[in-house]
Amino acid sequence: MSLDTAASKPHEALAGLLADDMDAVNELIETRMASEHAPRIPEVTAHLVGAGGKRLRPMLTLAAARLCGYDGPYHVHLAATVEFIHTATLLHDDVVDESDKRRGRPTANLLWDNKSSVLVGDYLFSRSFQLMTETNNIDVLRILSNASATIAEGEVLQLTAATDLRTDESVYLQVVRGKTAALFSAATEVGGVIAEANAADIQALFDYGDALGIAFQIADDLLDYQGDSNQTGKNVGDDFRERKLTLPVIKAVAQATSEERDFWVRTIEKGRQDDGDLDHALALMAKYGTLSATRDDALVWAERAKSAISSLPAHEIRDLLSDIADYVVARLN
Amino acid sequence: MSLDTAASKPHEALAGLLADDMDAVNELIETRMASEHAPRIPEVTAHLVGAGGKRLRPMLTLAAARLCGYDGPYHVHLAATVEFIHTATLLHDDVVDESDKRRGRPTANLLWDNKSSVLVGDYLFSRSFQLMTETNNIDVLRILSNASATIAEGEVLQLTAATDLRTDESVYLQVVRGKTAALFSAATEVGGVIAEANAADIQALFDYGDALGIAFQIADDLLDYQGDSNQTGKNVGDDFRERKLTLPVIKAVAQATSEERDFWVRTIEKGRQDDGDLDHALALMAKYGTLSATRDDALVWAERAKSAISSLPAHEIRDLLSDIADYVVARLN
Repeated sequence: MSLDTAASKPHEALAGLLADDMDAVNELIETRMASEHAPRIPEVTAHLVGAGGKRLRPMLTLAAARLCGYDGPYHVHLAATVEFIHTATLLHDDVVDESDKRRGRPTANLLWDNKSSVLVGDYLFSRSFQLMTETNNIDVLRILSNASATIAEGEVLQLTAATDLRTDESVYLQVVRGKTAALFSAATEVGGVIAEANAADIQALFDYGDALGIAFQIADDLLDYQGDSNQTGKNVGDDFRERKLTLPVIKAVAQATSEERDFWVRTIEKGRQDDGDLDHALALMAKYGTLSATRDDALVWAERAKSAISSLPAHEIRDLLSDIADYVVARLN
Repeated sequence: MSLDTAASKPHEALAGLLADDMDAVNELIETRMASEHAPRIPEVTAHLVGAGGKRLRPMLTLAAARLCGYDGPYHVHLAATVEFIHTATLLHDDVVDESDKRRGRPTANLLWDNKSSVLVGDYLFSRSFQLMTETNNIDVLRILSNASATIAEGEVLQLTAATDLRTDESVYLQVVRGKTAALFSAATEVGGVIAEANAADIQALFDYGDALGIAFQIADDLLDYQGDSNQTGKNVGDDFRERKLTLPVIKAVAQATSEERDFWVRTIEKGRQDDGDLDHALALMAKYGTLSATRDDALVWAERAKSAISSLPAHEIRDLLSDIADYVVARLN
């Protein structure tokens, strides 16, 4: 990767700024995902945690805490907590999505088995609660346990809503708030809380995380239909094949003629798909311009994220958080 | 059920004594397992939580708190927390054990699907952490989050240890302490902690729960080979068919001739089982008297449980806890 590219990515700039903190988080993650008694645990988690990723969520916690002037040690525990919750969720998602889906690389349940994915996920959840307990701060415990419940609730809601054509934009938003935005907003909120920021600043951080998470998920759902599979690690139309109603389709269903509705009933609700159905689905989305309407929605949420933190005191980190909101939607055509 | 039978069951006597508290726990469980947004959640949990069972674990928490003179409201939250953790574990166990096993009744993953079992289990875990957070007591949070991690670790250890003939009695004990005793001992310990009992009494309660949980699990594993399937809801030899090394087999493997060892390698490690293998396994256990040796071990742990609380002040509840330890092993021949 060229220096020029690196410099243009705000999350990398933020990671650079928070490098010492991120090192501490990575070390804590490594220590705490070990298990004296069950060697299978680090095998499975190393596969996931080691795969790296951008560590966006824990970085948000560190950034929020630093932005609010925190100089204690516990933002590191909270950042690791957030990453453990995220990783546990990924492990359980792989079981839920079943093994015929692989994303960019083999899932843990392909390399080991569903049993390991379920139980190691449980282990990481428990570890996350141990970590947050060490902060001795009951407010962050409340926020993060609420977020966990909201995540699980959003995932369960998605189970039934995803193939139900009555799912409208408000239900979609509820699912997205649950499965994605709840952890983003908890990540930024606890950063402010541990720093004992004032209520308005904490609310601003929460709102930023909430809007950023929604923008992030809408962008993800849009890229499923128009992304470059080399970049996203997914094939175009995975959500269609898995009968997952996301925003581009929900918008097309809302405007469907009776004949088009029959098509959506057959392919999404009943799951009877033939060759050419994905192309037809894409044609219907083009007909109603739902991909560009979805992109517009993502841009609105990114703007809301930026606007939420505009009231915070001027700070290098605040500007980078703002840039991250732009970056999340910049990858959309 | 006749009055006479009821009177002979100490957990029913204890439930009677704690009836108001148990009602409060049941009401709290009902309220908190609801979900405004995802109706699938109460469907799945009602199946499990509604199935009732003895509610032994939450009762232990209530009993410990009352025994230590607690008169606040939070033992109810802690008891519900313990039951939620237990129920979440059951849901995930059903996924792990796969659907060809049914116990007394259809498992949730047969009635719904693995996805629901995994995600609703996660929801209950999160709810349990919310509940315990409401006590504002960081000590019980620490104890219960540690217990959760120990449970998950024990379950993962069992994945690899169960079919490994090198698993000896000490590894078995570690698995049992994890998957079963950790929640029993946390249940009794937090009852003492919330009541602000002295350190010695809290330790006694912990030791009681630990030993009771071990006695309980050894008895369960023994009944798998000699139980009445009408009573246990399981078929004799389920553990053998599922290639789960438990104490009766571990003791037989330890004394096996080279030919017998080949039998165990084939049936447990390699999982190649034919008609008549269960009978042969039972014959080998009879040859070495491992069923009665396993029963003796269960009796020793029940005695340890009783002895642990003998130092506590005389109290009707203490005597019933003692009787429960006897009862857990009284069902063994």
